[in-house]
Amino acid sequence: MQPDPDQTAQLRVELGARGYPIHIGPGLRHRADLFTQAIQGRQVLVVSDTTVAPLYLDDLCNALTEFECRTLVLPDGEEHKTLATVEHIFDTLLEQRFERSATVLALGGGVVGDMAGFAAACYQRGIPFVQVPTTLLAQVDSSVGGKTGVNHPHGKNMIGAFHQPRAVIVDTETLDTLAERQLRAGVAEVIKYGLIRDAGFFVWLEQNMARLLARDRAALAEAVARSCANKAEIVAEDELESGVRALLNLGHTFGHAIETGTGYGRWLHGEAVAMGTVLAADLSLRMGWLSMAERDRLVALHLAADLPIEVPPGLGPDDFLRLMAVDKKVSGGRLRLVLLQAIGRAVITAEFDASLLQATLDSACRKAVS
Amino acid sequence: MQPDPDQTAQLRVELGARGYPIHIGPGLRHRADLFTQAIQGRQVLVVSDTTVAPLYLDDLCNALTEFECRTLVLPDGEEHKTLATVEHIFDTLLEQRFERSATVLALGGGVVGDMAGFAAACYQRGIPFVQVPTTLLAQVDSSVGGKTGVNHPHGKNMIGAFHQPRAVIVDTETLDTLAERQLRAGVAEVIKYGLIRDAGFFVWLEQNMARLLARDRAALAEAVARSCANKAEIVAEDELESGVRALLNLGHTFGHAIETGTGYGRWLHGEAVAMGTVLAADLSLRMGWLSMAERDRLVALHLAADLPIEVPPGLGPDDFLRLMAVDKKVSGGRLRLVLLQAIGRAVITAEFDASLLQATLDSACRKAVS
Repeated sequence: MQPDPDQTAQLRVELGARGYPIHIGPGLRHRADLFTQAIQGRQVLVVSDTTVAPLYLDDLCNALTEFECRTLVLPDGEEHKTLATVEHIFDTLLEQRFERSATVLALGGGVVGDMAGFAAACYQRGIPFVQVPTTLLAQVDSSVGGKTGVNHPHGKNMIGAFHQPRAVIVDTETLDTLAERQLRAGVAEVIKYGLIRDAGFFVWLEQNMARLLARDRAALAEAVARSCANKAEIVAEDELESGVRALLNLGHTFGHAIETGTGYGRWLHGEAVAMGTVLAADLSLRMGWLSMAERDRLVALHLAADLPIEVPPGLGPDDFLRLMAVDKKVSGGRLRLVLLQAIGRAVITAEFDASLLQATLDSACRKAVS
Repeated sequence: MQPDPDQTAQLRVELGARGYPIHIGPGLRHRADLFTQAIQGRQVLVVSDTTVAPLYLDDLCNALTEFECRTLVLPDGEEHKTLATVEHIFDTLLEQRFERSATVLALGGGVVGDMAGFAAACYQRGIPFVQVPTTLLAQVDSSVGGKTGVNHPHGKNMIGAFHQPRAVIVDTETLDTLAERQLRAGVAEVIKYGLIRDAGFFVWLEQNMARLLARDRAALAEAVARSCANKAEIVAEDELESGVRALLNLGHTFGHAIETGTGYGRWLHGEAVAMGTVLAADLSLRMGWLSMAERDRLVALHLAADLPIEVPPGLGPDDFLRLMAVDKKVSGGRLRLVLLQAIGRAVITAEFDASLLQATLDSACRKAVS
């Protein structure tokens, strides 16, 4: 699959009546026709943040002239992904008398998408929403699949809802203005698809990482499309994460511990996932599942993307274990982790040796102190 | 249908994989077997309030000994049905490390049930919950059908989710301790079923109101069972309120305006609904749909239950119109109301004459001032 960067690719998340299209292409924020297709009622609330709004909010509003359009700009950053911020969206919806037929449109990264989606899930017990993701991370992962929600001081993404968007409209041009650090964080979730189920994509990433980081448009478009295709397949198979969808959380249990433990917003989500993936690979290696050569390829690809491979200095093994005990995958008091059997093959399991997890954490945290 | 008060009746809400039983009978709070049937995991959080907990929480915990049971007692009253109180439930769930397999159990009236259900809907994006309603209003209406949520200063029940319980366990003995005013408020929602779809039940209520208010156990059990049977049929037909379910909101648009306008908790929900129903009947009469004789029977039944038939003195017609404009049934900027064509037959319509609504409100508010 080699999408022409001047062309729009279209995928679909097959979920019956809740199914929806993913449009991917340059300049889609101007495509009034796509928004008209996706939006039923007359009222639209565009939710964005202080970083993205100055860049793209006007363009988007110009594509929404046939609707009664209002805007809300939230503070940027994971530390604002709270119930209090969502309450602010509710206030706006009510003050502006938004009806049950109104649509919430999220213009921004994963934080904006998660909160706007959650507000849409709960306002009047559920109204439509549309995702217009502008970060690589949101384009390849968080905007697809209907996971919405906020963080709690005790745990990441602990409050939320499954609420599928009516459409995901990915304007790849918005990556032109994405901060370098945000771009790299997004790459972590791209690598994830290669690791858990698409070994061919992993090889492609090994060959094309330099092009991605140089923001080669064709390479970015292909990475987004292949990631979305993987995500759409998994979500169609297991919408509510009772099985295979949990594999998408590779690195996330470790990563969430880092995000919660260091304070939301210090590490970007993608950075924490990258670090978590390296830890999951280390444990997989100790379990005898992943070969050293595969582990080294994984670390090398993370290094090529300049992603962190050392845990934050303040966190010790006990902090990790305590924070990881609050995880949506804990079941019957037992922690379950996504581990790798090979590049391209992941499992979710509680059948790992606790002493090997301890050894993984001891080793990682020792490195960080020295 | 004449259920023996010494027997347990069982109904079912037919919603496929989301279907569930409604058990109705005396002393069911002691029936460990019913809870074991309804609850899958090992962790249970019982959410109750300061009025109900001293009366029944110990009994319930004794029936839950096979589970890892925790309790949370919330302040009582509609004025506490807020996102802030729900956040308190989230805190408890996280501090006690509740897993995704845990169950939230609501022991109390509609306020507790709505908030506990909403917390269950959002915790880890949705965990099971069970309703143990202890007020007449909750037993006949709010515990069945999966509507959960909280109020917003600008509008009643504006934030919430559809989240069906795994079971509704109605212990009719708990009505013995129900405050007189709460009992009467519950009767308002019982009358509703007769008005919107069950003329025979309306006649039964005309004949049995004195028994109900005297807390005759057989009469109460029959009223609960017939109400639940009506509710279960409507919910099975229209789970997400895209059609017929809206008829259950007879009196509610006017009633919500009273609750929001006077401040949550001043009028009980059932009292506001009763008043709203009288206003809906008045407008239906002015439309030429309801006969004066039917309207008089309706008012007489409300009077027999000592329910309010005069609007609160502080609210004028403009207040009503302003508050009613924020309603989940407003569509395309047009207010839709549930009106009566006869006793036993209701419609939802935007096709009412605005001047007749004005006349209804003018007349009702004039009476209140004099």
